[in-house]
Amino acid sequence: MIQQIDHLGIAVHNLEDSIEYYEKALGLHLHGREEVESQKVRTAFFEAGDVHIELLEPTSPESPIAKFLEKNGEGIHHIAFRVDDVVGQLKQASDAGVRLIHEVPFEGAANKLVAFLHPKSTRGVLTEFCQEKK
Amino acid sequence: MIQQIDHLGIAVHNLEDSIEYYEKALGLHLHGREEVESQKVRTAFFEAGDVHIELLEPTSPESPIAKFLEKNGEGIHHIAFRVDDVVGQLKQASDAGVRLIHEVPFEGAANKLVAFLHPKSTRGVLTEFCQEKK
Repeated sequence: MIQQIDHLGIAVHNLEDSIEYYEKALGLHLHGREEVESQKVRTAFFEAGDVHIELLEPTSPESPIAKFLEKNGEGIHHIAFRVDDVVGQLKQASDAGVRLIHEVPFEGAANKLVAFLHPKSTRGVLTEFCQEKK
Repeated sequence: MIQQIDHLGIAVHNLEDSIEYYEKALGLHLHGREEVESQKVRTAFFEAGDVHIELLEPTSPESPIAKFLEKNGEGIHHIAFRVDDVVGQLKQASDAGVRLIHEVPFEGAANKLVAFLHPKSTRGVLTEFCQEKK
């Protein structure tokens, strides 16, 4: 079951410039930073209510975020739903005809189990399921 | 002050097809529908935690959503932050150099006061502030 939106991933060219925007223009507070080697991104987190806003800056031209920026420019990259059972949630999506990027969840940032649905199947919204590890 | 994410607006070609996706593939429940004449859209709402997901189908080629779909295809159109003081929030953004689409908030759906920031100033994310009317 989907419990809530866990976070929104937003692709940006320059993390420091975007942090300044979120702090000064929106008045949000920087909550943390993380470098995710596997995705070749540096991230910064803000909180809006109980939803994280995750800014993503590529650290390499091979990063999926670099490719997204090249094609689309800056903007919302993905939406992540917090679920209680990522395997069951993937099965429900697959049974409904959705193409999965990951058939099996893997360990993402913050010690969560994550998997993505393919945006060709999700009406244009790159969609992640994430589950706290028990 | 930003209190939480109020809703995400998602542009879709076909509301019924997308409702079926959100219900069957994601297991979310349809919460309501509304036609917003001023924006020339039909909408359907889902809830994920305390955030609304608002699907937007244009009812006319002149709808801003029709233009978005033509340029970008289906996907996330805007993010709306719930704020306690939309006028003060606009002033903070403007003071930080953000270009505003609306200098003065107007009455949006669900009896809220709303205003948008220009995506050229917001690192690619069309951003709405909305405030419950007192």
